[in-house]
Amino acid sequence: MSLVRTLYHFPLDPASRQVRLALAEKRLPFEDVVVRYWEQPDDFTALNPSGLTPVLVERTADRKVVVCEARAVLEHLEQVAPEPDLLGPTPADRAEVRRLQQWFDRKFDSEVNGFLLYEKLEKRLQKLGAPDLYNMRQGRDALRVHLVYIERLLQARDWLAGRYLSLADIAAASHISVLDYFGDIPWRDFPALKLWYMRIKSRPAFRALLADRWPGLAPSSYYDDLDF
Amino acid sequence: MSLVRTLYHFPLDPASRQVRLALAEKRLPFEDVVVRYWEQPDDFTALNPSGLTPVLVERTADRKVVVCEARAVLEHLEQVAPEPDLLGPTPADRAEVRRLQQWFDRKFDSEVNGFLLYEKLEKRLQKLGAPDLYNMRQGRDALRVHLVYIERLLQARDWLAGRYLSLADIAAASHISVLDYFGDIPWRDFPALKLWYMRIKSRPAFRALLADRWPGLAPSSYYDDLDF
Repeated sequence: MSLVRTLYHFPLDPASRQVRLALAEKRLPFEDVVVRYWEQPDDFTALNPSGLTPVLVERTADRKVVVCEARAVLEHLEQVAPEPDLLGPTPADRAEVRRLQQWFDRKFDSEVNGFLLYEKLEKRLQKLGAPDLYNMRQGRDALRVHLVYIERLLQARDWLAGRYLSLADIAAASHISVLDYFGDIPWRDFPALKLWYMRIKSRPAFRALLADRWPGLAPSSYYDDLDF
Repeated sequence: MSLVRTLYHFPLDPASRQVRLALAEKRLPFEDVVVRYWEQPDDFTALNPSGLTPVLVERTADRKVVVCEARAVLEHLEQVAPEPDLLGPTPADRAEVRRLQQWFDRKFDSEVNGFLLYEKLEKRLQKLGAPDLYNMRQGRDALRVHLVYIERLLQARDWLAGRYLSLADIAAASHISVLDYFGDIPWRDFPALKLWYMRIKSRPAFRALLADRWPGLAPSSYYDDLDF
């Protein structure tokens, strides 16, 4: 029974990146469809009424499963393709991984992306005018507070949630890599974070992300440099 | 081996309510500690660095597991106490439940609660002054769009995600019940939603929520009325 996976995603969307990384770490092949979600294409809204990427569609001869939203896809993949385990072996491990996922998906997303990515990416895509400098400043200030917290975790741990690469690293790397595309991570102030990101960046699963480019949005000069 | 569960929560927090309902549906006894999260108490921030409710602590003689954030707690409970199953039997069921959880936790939360609950609840708790009428209007307009969508789902389904009560119903009921505390649900325009909420409201698991009161914030006259 052959199964075909199709991922609907946007390359610079941190939620989409989490799913691409998880699929690649689990060595699950997939076809990908790039969605210009801000144009609200009808066929995509029919797939996911929220209009947001990512959506994973799994097709076999006799069934089709549509999984919408990153958290749903990631939990789904842990169940249907448990190796490697990206949640961790014990309830305490899984609790720590999911706590950090939530941290990035809600706290980081609203405090940092809601200002910085909104101004630098979404306003460009939607042609909403020039970035607001005050909002960018607010986003950068919040980003620094988050990076201080992540740096502290990584000074004490091999990986973000503990001893193993997990969905927490994947969440963090997805958000941080998009901000790095725009040159917004002050690497020299965060040595443990930088070392961790060098390790993540050199993983085969990360290669596709480093090749992402979006017309009109040039990446920072060191975005795809493994030794930055 | 006896296990003691303690839930740190705020009664009018939709995320906390989801965990209280899941614990009650699974008939898991727990002690509860009410957290005035906006005062950022040190002992609570030590438990959850994000400073947000809910947090579930499970203690046995030789171990302690701290589970922070609603999504982490809910997934944890499905694993340690799988009956009744609140995610559903098949991958497609679970995908639909988690899609709707995400809908409420992100889309509803930012489009509705970020305006309506912020103005009516958080500003009161934090003594930030009078509600902004423009924001309240924006939250109410967004709420109506969401209720139209939920009404459409419930016209075709027994429960929000399909044939069984699930974490999708629990997410929806948690958000809607807090807005109903403030009298903000226009019930007469949404008959299928109202019927669903009457069924939810009459479940034993819901009783504790209907007894919630917060000093200085009176509930709507029909908040705890089963026949509203």
